[in-house]
Amino acid sequence: MNAYQEISSSAARAFCQELFKSYHFSTAESAVISDILLAADFAGIESHGIQRIIRYHEEITSGCVDVHAVPETVFDTKLSAVIDAHKAMGQLVAINALDLACVKARDQGFGIVSVRNANHIGICGYYTERAAQEGFIGICMTNTEAIAVPTFGSAGMLGTNPIAFAMNADPFPLSFDVSTTVVPRGKLEVCAKNNEPLPLGWAVDEEGRDTTNAAEVIDRIVRKAGGGILPLGGAGILSGGHKGFGLGILVEIFTGILSGGITSNHINRVPGETGICASFLVLDCALFGDTNEIKKRLEHFLDELRTSPKAQGHDRIFIPGERKAEVSAQRAQSTIPVNKPTLDELRRIAALQDVDSRLLC
Amino acid sequence: MNAYQEISSSAARAFCQELFKSYHFSTAESAVISDILLAADFAGIESHGIQRIIRYHEEITSGCVDVHAVPETVFDTKLSAVIDAHKAMGQLVAINALDLACVKARDQGFGIVSVRNANHIGICGYYTERAAQEGFIGICMTNTEAIAVPTFGSAGMLGTNPIAFAMNADPFPLSFDVSTTVVPRGKLEVCAKNNEPLPLGWAVDEEGRDTTNAAEVIDRIVRKAGGGILPLGGAGILSGGHKGFGLGILVEIFTGILSGGITSNHINRVPGETGICASFLVLDCALFGDTNEIKKRLEHFLDELRTSPKAQGHDRIFIPGERKAEVSAQRAQSTIPVNKPTLDELRRIAALQDVDSRLLC
Repeated sequence: MNAYQEISSSAARAFCQELFKSYHFSTAESAVISDILLAADFAGIESHGIQRIIRYHEEITSGCVDVHAVPETVFDTKLSAVIDAHKAMGQLVAINALDLACVKARDQGFGIVSVRNANHIGICGYYTERAAQEGFIGICMTNTEAIAVPTFGSAGMLGTNPIAFAMNADPFPLSFDVSTTVVPRGKLEVCAKNNEPLPLGWAVDEEGRDTTNAAEVIDRIVRKAGGGILPLGGAGILSGGHKGFGLGILVEIFTGILSGGITSNHINRVPGETGICASFLVLDCALFGDTNEIKKRLEHFLDELRTSPKAQGHDRIFIPGERKAEVSAQRAQSTIPVNKPTLDELRRIAALQDVDSRLLC
Repeated sequence: MNAYQEISSSAARAFCQELFKSYHFSTAESAVISDILLAADFAGIESHGIQRIIRYHEEITSGCVDVHAVPETVFDTKLSAVIDAHKAMGQLVAINALDLACVKARDQGFGIVSVRNANHIGICGYYTERAAQEGFIGICMTNTEAIAVPTFGSAGMLGTNPIAFAMNADPFPLSFDVSTTVVPRGKLEVCAKNNEPLPLGWAVDEEGRDTTNAAEVIDRIVRKAGGGILPLGGAGILSGGHKGFGLGILVEIFTGILSGGITSNHINRVPGETGICASFLVLDCALFGDTNEIKKRLEHFLDELRTSPKAQGHDRIFIPGERKAEVSAQRAQSTIPVNKPTLDELRRIAALQDVDSRLLC
């Protein structure tokens, strides 16, 4: 395991903002990107936090991300819009798309905005929780580089294709944000970095056979040479692998297909663009009656789940988003753990971008 | 394994229609119920076909289903409605709810109708495919008697909570219809009937420990004495069990919570009512541009999936709904397999209802 160092959250924020400004994002844009990245570190979703800055750095400097892109609304109705991001930074077009869906939901009760030709948008839960804070149900999906094999298939054709869903509740919002694969790519990367074997049932090789070799699976994904992560439910259909496969297709429809963009199997195939697509659905609970009563019914049900009998060896049932909310509140006020190789990487990038990395101390 | 007998599909339909008329459903209502039941037998989803008539018979004669109920729209907006079924037969209120959502989608681009205080609605895919035939994206969810344990829990708190999704495509509509548990209840019932052990990873006992005893799990579910089926992804979080748990909660929200009805853990708790809830979402693809282009993009992607490399030992990748469409077309014109105990049961019920069971020969 890599060693971790605790970094002050405010220092990490200041560093991120300066770094993104160095690529010529505006101060406001840099603040938005930093907010979304740090939300992942606060939530303990390290894979989507500042350890991913290396990837953004590469995508910005290689031209996959166009810092000066002006996303364009190419189709618009009272309830819906399609936005061509024109290779904008994912977080920036995503937050505007979510906010547009919220405006439509406020006016009409429902809004859906699909985005094409974008880039990685960070954690989907950030957007759905923002909708939930406004009193809405928020749903977000995004496709990603093809990494998941179809049921009975042996080549990555679908992305990890997360689905996030959030709705306001006390004391914690219900916030569900998961890939439709057994595990997200980040979990394989952690195994590879730490030279640990993969658990059986996570990934298959180029013949569709079980494999425990994380580094090889990732290498093949990058080279598009077959193999990949299994859909949620695992191999075949015995434990429902076809269900994860179907959910992955659903995400492709709401992202690449409805937006006029591309599906995961075409992402990162052309130099200079990723082609990632995303979709934001916002629903006003007032479509169903008194929103306070609906919220109370949800809270009552979540309490019933929390207090239901526990499995042997467990003393707590976690509602989706609960653990994240607890750790986020604490970390936002104090420090985040950053692994040493990531810190070294950030310092190298800072030097290249002429940003003061002493902010990270 | 039980022996099966092939029954003419037209004879099975005639028998079902006569049987449901014997409970005082109208001819038109009896035809709708029979259609939805037989759609399951045609699709090879035996658990939801005419073998379930015994359950409907019991629910009708015990008063859980009110044959003369008049469902009431208790909340209505341009985009949405909430219907109190007043214990109507599930299929009858469900098809009206789906059709109402389609009307709203045709007018506005989107429609959502949630139903409370209903009964078992049959296969969710029937409704979503009906929406798809109209050119829409259809989504259907329903809660059910609590049978699924939460992640780290040991008591059934959620139903099998299916999610169905359909969209038109050639040569087969995309039609995805799955429980959010590892397996649906029917698979346990088949194992119990055939005295076969459950595969590990399907169900747990009252302490939340792995179990292979199907009969005991079902008995405990009925007695509400703990244990149950695992959420999609299995036990704990290693292979994503928390994802199935979260999807199950999402279904509870769209069904019991938004409709002002009850969640699965309260279903079948009061004699004389089930309390099952359902939800129907319909989205017009015209919200995103040219619907023909969208359909073509979907068909192209599904073809890419079909022709992608196969895992060792497999020569075909099945798109959700494809196998079902193939077998349905054939069976609707010929015969359906019905197991002998079901046939005996149907003859007993026919005798009680004074219906001619020779129709089944």
